[in-house]
Amino acid sequence: MTFPALLDLPEWKRFVLAAQTCAPRADGLDLIEAPGLVLDTSGQRHSADLLAAGEALLEARDFATQRARLLAGDEVNVTEHRAAWHTVLRAPRGPEDVLSARERVDAFVRRADSERRWRHIVHVGIGGSDWGVRLAVTAFGYAGTWRDVRFVANIDGHAIEGGLAGLDPRETLVVLVSKSFTTAETLQNGARAREWLKAAGLDPAAHMVAVTAQPERARAWGIADTHIFRLWDWVGGRFSIWSAVSLTTALSVGSDVLAGLRMGAAAMDEHFAQAPLAANAPVRMALAGIVNRSVLGQGSLNIAPYDSRLANLVPYVQQLDMESLGKSVDVAGRPVGVPTGPAVWGMPGTDAQHTFFQWMHQGSDGAPVDFILCRQADHHWPTHHRQLLANCLAQREALMRGKTLDEARAECRAEGLGAAAVEALAPHRVHPGGRPNHLIVLPRLSPYSLGALLALYEHKVFTQGLIWGIDPFDQWGVEYGKVLAKGIIAELGAGVAASAETAPPAATPHDASTHHWIEALSS
Amino acid sequence: MTFPALLDLPEWKRFVLAAQTCAPRADGLDLIEAPGLVLDTSGQRHSADLLAAGEALLEARDFATQRARLLAGDEVNVTEHRAAWHTVLRAPRGPEDVLSARERVDAFVRRADSERRWRHIVHVGIGGSDWGVRLAVTAFGYAGTWRDVRFVANIDGHAIEGGLAGLDPRETLVVLVSKSFTTAETLQNGARAREWLKAAGLDPAAHMVAVTAQPERARAWGIADTHIFRLWDWVGGRFSIWSAVSLTTALSVGSDVLAGLRMGAAAMDEHFAQAPLAANAPVRMALAGIVNRSVLGQGSLNIAPYDSRLANLVPYVQQLDMESLGKSVDVAGRPVGVPTGPAVWGMPGTDAQHTFFQWMHQGSDGAPVDFILCRQADHHWPTHHRQLLANCLAQREALMRGKTLDEARAECRAEGLGAAAVEALAPHRVHPGGRPNHLIVLPRLSPYSLGALLALYEHKVFTQGLIWGIDPFDQWGVEYGKVLAKGIIAELGAGVAASAETAPPAATPHDASTHHWIEALSS
Repeated sequence: MTFPALLDLPEWKRFVLAAQTCAPRADGLDLIEAPGLVLDTSGQRHSADLLAAGEALLEARDFATQRARLLAGDEVNVTEHRAAWHTVLRAPRGPEDVLSARERVDAFVRRADSERRWRHIVHVGIGGSDWGVRLAVTAFGYAGTWRDVRFVANIDGHAIEGGLAGLDPRETLVVLVSKSFTTAETLQNGARAREWLKAAGLDPAAHMVAVTAQPERARAWGIADTHIFRLWDWVGGRFSIWSAVSLTTALSVGSDVLAGLRMGAAAMDEHFAQAPLAANAPVRMALAGIVNRSVLGQGSLNIAPYDSRLANLVPYVQQLDMESLGKSVDVAGRPVGVPTGPAVWGMPGTDAQHTFFQWMHQGSDGAPVDFILCRQADHHWPTHHRQLLANCLAQREALMRGKTLDEARAECRAEGLGAAAVEALAPHRVHPGGRPNHLIVLPRLSPYSLGALLALYEHKVFTQGLIWGIDPFDQWGVEYGKVLAKGIIAELGAGVAASAETAPPAATPHDASTHHWIEALSS
Repeated sequence: MTFPALLDLPEWKRFVLAAQTCAPRADGLDLIEAPGLVLDTSGQRHSADLLAAGEALLEARDFATQRARLLAGDEVNVTEHRAAWHTVLRAPRGPEDVLSARERVDAFVRRADSERRWRHIVHVGIGGSDWGVRLAVTAFGYAGTWRDVRFVANIDGHAIEGGLAGLDPRETLVVLVSKSFTTAETLQNGARAREWLKAAGLDPAAHMVAVTAQPERARAWGIADTHIFRLWDWVGGRFSIWSAVSLTTALSVGSDVLAGLRMGAAAMDEHFAQAPLAANAPVRMALAGIVNRSVLGQGSLNIAPYDSRLANLVPYVQQLDMESLGKSVDVAGRPVGVPTGPAVWGMPGTDAQHTFFQWMHQGSDGAPVDFILCRQADHHWPTHHRQLLANCLAQREALMRGKTLDEARAECRAEGLGAAAVEALAPHRVHPGGRPNHLIVLPRLSPYSLGALLALYEHKVFTQGLIWGIDPFDQWGVEYGKVLAKGIIAELGAGVAASAETAPPAATPHDASTHHWIEALSS
């Protein structure tokens, strides 16, 4: 394999040096206009040198070619030998099968709407089959919708119990989403829903639909042909919001929301493909993230949407980013050699301010923040919105500017404290400042802007993967736990943990603690 | 001040050395029985030396005395000169005013129940006035309750809009919670709720109650005397679940849930006060956390409850831990000198496995995990529960054990891959292993066990604060942003950002970006 290791690239050394010699805060204004949003990168390390070094680094990674390959549906997922062609799912023109799959979803929704059917939707899916739909439904149905949507993801039986509680089975449609149609959680929860329908004297086939890349398995499970919606092998779970997985979204908040999401994402794809690197929003976000993670050593990235409707953006981006970049080996199988994908976490502001912003301001490390806000609200209380915007700008300003010991002393004195009290208290009011951030401003929370925002994060992740040399489209690390779980399920059922004596030849005996708990928790 | 700096303590040097020379995994079984739960610390760095060094370190910090002072209601919040006496709120016997405040809540709930009043509760509070109630209501009311509870925290107008949507005002009780009764979010949202009640022709005073330490302010705002429930100055927001803040919990899931939570927490207080250090659950958790953060340099702590009813445990512990320990200056005003409180984040398993466990297994850093599970479920599907337990144990085992390159190669060969394919793929299936964790096992999710669990985290945080020398009960870092927000709210209203020319003498002009957005977002 000729793919060069990151640490061997002279362009990497130049990039690190340029980042290290940047001022923590330039105090300039650095706005990037992109479809559906404006990205303000003024809060990141910046210099002309650093930008030039970033461009050279991308060049060394053959960025233009790789980007073209991604968008053309080439085999960019190298460890799994397939494409990652989610962009075609939102393209205005696409292959016939993509368009007809889209039309089938729309037709199903049109018919359900015209018949006023399905008062309740139980959406059964986990991870990528869950977060995108949750995000869209919360974003655009926050004040309630005609159809009540419940989400059931966890294998925990309380999840499906709570998901079905109080629903009228005659009015309920169960949407099962599993690309492989082997996901343990989804099939178990689906089986419970099927029993529940049967117990009500209903035909489950009439009340259940499936979204999957394995239609035969769905059929064998009992889903009617006309109720099976197609996925493709080349659609990763964390990119599946653009596929028929969003059937529930359309049933809940409307097919026009889906159309708007697609348009916004497609416009961002175009921007990503065309805009010069310095004015390319995903590229600039990616470069800033690499500086924060691999040069400054920041271990996490905080997502702070100042819009309560975007609560589910946090787990959505968390999955997108961490499942893509939570790897430390490059495509050639070598250690990357620098810290890669950060822990992504967060909470809508202003809730976050009352939960962990203390730590953001004065903790040992803090975290880079992506602030997100909507210029215009969809309610009628301007005072609320002004306070919301002001809080976002103020927290950001405080994180950037900081507060010196002298400023803290002056503040204490202005409150009338005596000299000893000033000296005792002032150090506790110091803020180091210089914390990096992005500010992303949407004109309003339209499907178009949200679609663009999601594509922005997708392409940021792709670009960072390319620089680190990681395959952002595989997820080998999730297999191991699944395999171990299968063995432990059997042991819990049998009441015997595999020990050095009882383990089948292929299995390694458990550590003492795992062994103990298998025995103790056996039924 | 005679409080010694951490780095000056010989006991600290000994502790670091002992931690550094520990094996990553002892393969022993290290269980600590505590009220309401068992703590398994087998997954942490451990040696007899390290434990002895930890005990000596606590001794050097005068742990026994400080713990006694906490529990006796002494002035342990040194920067704010007050007690942090939340433990008395759950004590079986307490001062007269604490018991009578508790009885007032119970009486209010008894009366509401006997009259079948208040079909809808709108709980308006943020941060500590929100998470604890949300946690208890989700934990024990996950399958629906007779009273529908809505939570409104964010200043974002969409929050109160969604919170009131579809409710019948005649049947709605609004619970306003603000210790200071000056919290901007809560008063603004309360004002919207008041307008909504008035618009329905109702008397707001009959439909609103307040929980506050400032009854005069609540009275002036329009709350009836009989509807004001008392807090005390010495109850921090993040410890207020033990106070009348839980009125909403009692209305939703019953006063006996509150009583159970208190009993469990009180039992954990007793354990914390009495158990020898080596068998003291909060102490052992604290020491392990200090090793992970300050010796191994782990930047974050993941909370993984394997129970979907505990989804809100994550933000609850996040606030408790990060607002308490997100500081880098000790009580004497000196830099602590080592990394302090971690970023706390997480998600219930198995959802987490499909969201970010890829990163936990193969990312550059990973994170220590607190796994939490309930031995017994409260539903009737043993297969679900067995799968849930197995997944928890399996993920934990995978994180501890790891998988070597040779094991990965063998796995690839067993799947029939050729030599070249084995060499290409195997590195992507390696897991470093040795990731630290706790496993906390509750017999079932009873109020008693949950109360004990919350007190376990509280005392862990207290102990870590003492070792680092941090005041865990203040939160000076949240003030600065509030002050800046006030100025920006005014500027947004006036349409003019303070610049070097227009800023009032006390204010510093904004950076270019903040200035730009104030102008651009002005109404």
